[in-house]
Amino acid sequence: MTLPVAVDAMGGDNAPGEIIAGAKRAADELGIPIVLVGPPDQVGDTLGLPLVACTEVIAMDEDPAQGVRRKKDSSLVRAAELVRDNKASAMVSAGNTGATMASALLRMGRIRGVHRPCIATPLPRPGRPPAVLVDAGANAECTTEMLVQFAQMAAAFSTARFGITEPSVALLSIGEEASKGTPLVKETHKVLAEGAGVRFVGNIEGRDLLDAPVDVIVTDGFTGNVALKTLEGSLKFLMTKLLEIFTTNEETRAAMDVLLPHLAPLMGDLDPDGAGGAMLLGLEGVCIISHGSSSATAMRNAIAVGHDLAEAGVTEALRSAVTPA
Amino acid sequence: MTLPVAVDAMGGDNAPGEIIAGAKRAADELGIPIVLVGPPDQVGDTLGLPLVACTEVIAMDEDPAQGVRRKKDSSLVRAAELVRDNKASAMVSAGNTGATMASALLRMGRIRGVHRPCIATPLPRPGRPPAVLVDAGANAECTTEMLVQFAQMAAAFSTARFGITEPSVALLSIGEEASKGTPLVKETHKVLAEGAGVRFVGNIEGRDLLDAPVDVIVTDGFTGNVALKTLEGSLKFLMTKLLEIFTTNEETRAAMDVLLPHLAPLMGDLDPDGAGGAMLLGLEGVCIISHGSSSATAMRNAIAVGHDLAEAGVTEALRSAVTPA
Repeated sequence: MTLPVAVDAMGGDNAPGEIIAGAKRAADELGIPIVLVGPPDQVGDTLGLPLVACTEVIAMDEDPAQGVRRKKDSSLVRAAELVRDNKASAMVSAGNTGATMASALLRMGRIRGVHRPCIATPLPRPGRPPAVLVDAGANAECTTEMLVQFAQMAAAFSTARFGITEPSVALLSIGEEASKGTPLVKETHKVLAEGAGVRFVGNIEGRDLLDAPVDVIVTDGFTGNVALKTLEGSLKFLMTKLLEIFTTNEETRAAMDVLLPHLAPLMGDLDPDGAGGAMLLGLEGVCIISHGSSSATAMRNAIAVGHDLAEAGVTEALRSAVTPA
Repeated sequence: MTLPVAVDAMGGDNAPGEIIAGAKRAADELGIPIVLVGPPDQVGDTLGLPLVACTEVIAMDEDPAQGVRRKKDSSLVRAAELVRDNKASAMVSAGNTGATMASALLRMGRIRGVHRPCIATPLPRPGRPPAVLVDAGANAECTTEMLVQFAQMAAAFSTARFGITEPSVALLSIGEEASKGTPLVKETHKVLAEGAGVRFVGNIEGRDLLDAPVDVIVTDGFTGNVALKTLEGSLKFLMTKLLEIFTTNEETRAAMDVLLPHLAPLMGDLDPDGAGGAMLLGLEGVCIISHGSSSATAMRNAIAVGHDLAEAGVTEALRSAVTPA
């Protein structure tokens, strides 16, 4: 029997409405079994989906460690327990990212030999499968050993998620030469170049993150988070400005109508709702993190990704990929 | 008598043609005295501008430290000497950034008490004066003391260059809370919050780099360089895609003609050619670094910035701003 995907009904800026609507679409359109998790009085109408009841919610702005420690009957902690107890194939949340990570880490546990879990985020490459940025924010401080494991796990993830065989792996740095960057980057470059079970192709720079020439980009969680948000912020800024210009007057609206069929595929490729969320790599279970402003469509896609990765045995693939600590 | 601006005639992808054309425009349009620096046989026609002859050029891809050590009669080293010897008010180069920094540092020397010079780069804020990102790539590894001085110098630079009084200063991090980020960021947050002579307003994230809500953004040179290139790469990618879409067929070209008058001001604001280059802060003299692909317009603007900052006494302002080591 196929296990359901556990969906944190209370996670995200648009919870519970868009979350439940997205879960319903995943069930109806894709045939994915779902179990919602949340306090019944706050969740309201489940649209006929089953609900695992709990009593607490960790808020978006709550301290993650404290939230998880104090709220043992929260939707996030209960969702992670469903995966741990083999009652769900994966958990999906658009809520507090730190608390999602902490819940998953504490309840599912790490894959043996993994130093630290990390966040793998898809970066758009219009017309091609996305690249994977790792670590997108789980670990502000990293060691060489951690970055090497991130590279190994993200490569396995790229294969499991996007079907890329022998994905190319690069380090994010401030120049292509092996001599460029921080001591951490230089040391990691050396270890990856000596052979760590991934197809390492060298350093890339920030300008290559969008439409990346490599399949996996490895960096520490501080740099990765800054870079990811810079990229998202730049795209959002320009999209907003374009929309302002398009809606200036009758003439510009007519011009927009002409351009929209050409723009739509690009905007679809760049839309974070389409990417299906980030995955926490290194845990004994699948945990998908969707962005805080997730729509029903974003949730539907994130649930599909969680389901598909669990079915494809991504956790086993990650176990095999990692050189144990 | 106004000192001339020393222009590295051989620096940049478009040297010497665009460099000299830009210098000529600065002289003719803005009345700025110019002295070109370069090997006469490679420089060719100086368009009537005076030339300080040298025999060597440090190539774009040459190792900076080696280049400066070995090529003592290079255009970069000679340009820096002209500033040191009070024969030029500022130096401007679109060439090898590392070698430009090394030349300026070795020949002009640091302001007393400054740990390390840093690169201050303008970040576009359409309709408003640019924000300043520091360090944009000079120092991959930083200490709290360095970041605090970067904040102090960049604030003085923001005032000298953009006329912003009491500029607001923020740290680049992965969350707005003081508890977020690396130990370096957290420690620097503490020192700046306790009062370091700048108007510190807290942390900002990567998504705020474009059209920033603060006047100065402080970070280490690794993160700063990755973020800057990510921002530039994202904008360039979208602009290229837009142009492709605009030129699809007759109909889209007509739509482009309607939109262009509305798009032009935005594109102008985002164009790195308009910003006039980055400045190396912390030296006993003005050194402006223009991007490698500088056009004549970019050089004209960079020369104007160097001239204006020297006239405005930016070096004295930086000296006063810094808490000595």
